[in-house]
Amino acid sequence: MGSLEMERTTTGWAARDPTGVLSPYTYTLRNTGPEDVYLKVTYCGVCHTDIHQTKNDLGMSNYPMVPGHEVVGEVLEVGSDVTKYKVGDVVGVGALVGSCRQCNPCQSNIEQYCNKRIWSYNDVYTDGKPTQGGFSGAMVVDQKFVVKIPEGLAAEQAAPLLCAGLTVYSPLRHFNLNKPGLKGAILGLGGVGHMGVKVAKAMGHHVTVISSSNKKKVEAMDDLGADAYLVSTDSDHMLQAMDRLDYILDTVPVAHPLEPYLSLLKVDGRLIIMGVIGEPLKFVSPMIMLGRKSISGTFVGSIEETGEMLEFCKEKGISSQIEVVKMDYINKAFERLEKNDVRYRFVVDVAGSKLDA
Amino acid sequence: MGSLEMERTTTGWAARDPTGVLSPYTYTLRNTGPEDVYLKVTYCGVCHTDIHQTKNDLGMSNYPMVPGHEVVGEVLEVGSDVTKYKVGDVVGVGALVGSCRQCNPCQSNIEQYCNKRIWSYNDVYTDGKPTQGGFSGAMVVDQKFVVKIPEGLAAEQAAPLLCAGLTVYSPLRHFNLNKPGLKGAILGLGGVGHMGVKVAKAMGHHVTVISSSNKKKVEAMDDLGADAYLVSTDSDHMLQAMDRLDYILDTVPVAHPLEPYLSLLKVDGRLIIMGVIGEPLKFVSPMIMLGRKSISGTFVGSIEETGEMLEFCKEKGISSQIEVVKMDYINKAFERLEKNDVRYRFVVDVAGSKLDA
Repeated sequence: MGSLEMERTTTGWAARDPTGVLSPYTYTLRNTGPEDVYLKVTYCGVCHTDIHQTKNDLGMSNYPMVPGHEVVGEVLEVGSDVTKYKVGDVVGVGALVGSCRQCNPCQSNIEQYCNKRIWSYNDVYTDGKPTQGGFSGAMVVDQKFVVKIPEGLAAEQAAPLLCAGLTVYSPLRHFNLNKPGLKGAILGLGGVGHMGVKVAKAMGHHVTVISSSNKKKVEAMDDLGADAYLVSTDSDHMLQAMDRLDYILDTVPVAHPLEPYLSLLKVDGRLIIMGVIGEPLKFVSPMIMLGRKSISGTFVGSIEETGEMLEFCKEKGISSQIEVVKMDYINKAFERLEKNDVRYRFVVDVAGSKLDA
Repeated sequence: MGSLEMERTTTGWAARDPTGVLSPYTYTLRNTGPEDVYLKVTYCGVCHTDIHQTKNDLGMSNYPMVPGHEVVGEVLEVGSDVTKYKVGDVVGVGALVGSCRQCNPCQSNIEQYCNKRIWSYNDVYTDGKPTQGGFSGAMVVDQKFVVKIPEGLAAEQAAPLLCAGLTVYSPLRHFNLNKPGLKGAILGLGGVGHMGVKVAKAMGHHVTVISSSNKKKVEAMDDLGADAYLVSTDSDHMLQAMDRLDYILDTVPVAHPLEPYLSLLKVDGRLIIMGVIGEPLKFVSPMIMLGRKSISGTFVGSIEETGEMLEFCKEKGISSQIEVVKMDYINKAFERLEKNDVRYRFVVDVAGSKLDA
């Protein structure tokens, strides 16, 4: 709670209403508290959720809203109790910037499941001010929600790992699916799906991409290294593929039938849903009972898993496939992302866009 | 494949058509092969699935059909290669009498998930003849699908354990929920549900019974020993109970909304569905994602688990609550079971009904 003249401002690109159109917006940042890291944003990935939020698709949007939750930046200043980071470090911030620290999930280091979690944007911080995301010149973030980007990972490459990469890594790790020899499938080949192929391959899995048409076959097999490609509308192929998979990462962000995919799972197989979908998903009970199958859902991952995932990606040489754009391209990028017209993730070159210049 | 004059006959009560009315029916049994056990049925439990099958609710019924898959009997004869059983032993037979023995589930001793499993009735055995269930004077069953009823467990008490008891024991065991201190709930208080309360209590759990009205509160708490009772239509109570449960055993055999129950689960909680339901069950994905919850289904249990479960019940002094009836009461019993008018399982005193007299 510094004096007014101590408060810093930054400029981000904000949506002002449910049209979701972003435009420059200048706002104040809190002073760097003892546990805070003040960082200059260098790159920020563009996730489909950003569109949902700016357009109020989930009915919980507050404006002005600066989205962006795949943030990479450079530390400019650290609070007096910050020991893990120093000025000049390259760090990342993901979907969360706060949690209660007292509940069971917090105590178990799975703070992403804390009921009082604070989102990087479109939320209210403990000081009562709105949180604003990474499509901005700078952020102030509690050190607990900051991760180190390992040396050797390019900043723009690392950005999509902080949500898309984590989203696929966390369930594979948590459900003991991070061991070689498994047969997995990725349903839907967007920003999250393409990371799914890469992470699953790096874990030593046989990876099938499932898509509604043959259109993405070459890119899935040749560019991303998938082992097989299955067209969900080809009933003969689907029948042949039954009872084969240990898991499916279901990245489809709209309502879709589950049964065709449940039938592809072997006994004890797991369908893992990672698309936030407002319409109900459906299944008949024998489809899971006669094979002891599970339908599970996970949500990003913990800060601990984020660090582990980044190290894993560095070790395995995993990079995201991205299209780097400047901040003033963001509305066009949202439009193209909605049409799935990007291979596979937009990343905004925030520093190069000189928002705070 | 003995000569005609060697073939034994037995009399059961069979449905002849989808009216599902049972009446006496005499048929031949195969000769006792080297691996077979020939047994006189003493008691057989009545499960809701028997009604579904006799009425062709699942669309796969063949007639005449002798139902019954919670069979307790006395060994009359054993084949030359049978070493586990001898004449006079009290044994049980459940939902299955065969499987392929070669597939992964068979090799892993979870033959209930073999795609070529052979049901105790309404199926075709390896000799090409229809299988017939336990509402009959006698059965011939491969020793692999026969279990010993431990001394000290009354035959009529043991019958419902072979399906209802196993159905609740198997998932608790498999999903590592058989440890003390957990908080579980049983949704639906019928034949399976009442065993759920007993087995979960014996595992040391805090057990909540969830029901749509207050009607069963006294019996759930006083007779069955539940720790809590939750009325699903009481929205205040439901709200207070959120985020508390490690698991729910969902025994409801008709379509119902899943979301009110998913919200009762804590992070990593598991909704385990055990009702064969033809209509789709529905949920929205954030309900499982924001808590890493799972919707799982299991189907009875393995022969290995059956033996283990029977020992567990004997050790813990678990008995089923039953109403013993004679064979000629079966049509009335079906009627009452359909109205949920039984506390909690009918068991037919088959030997006392003198079918083969």
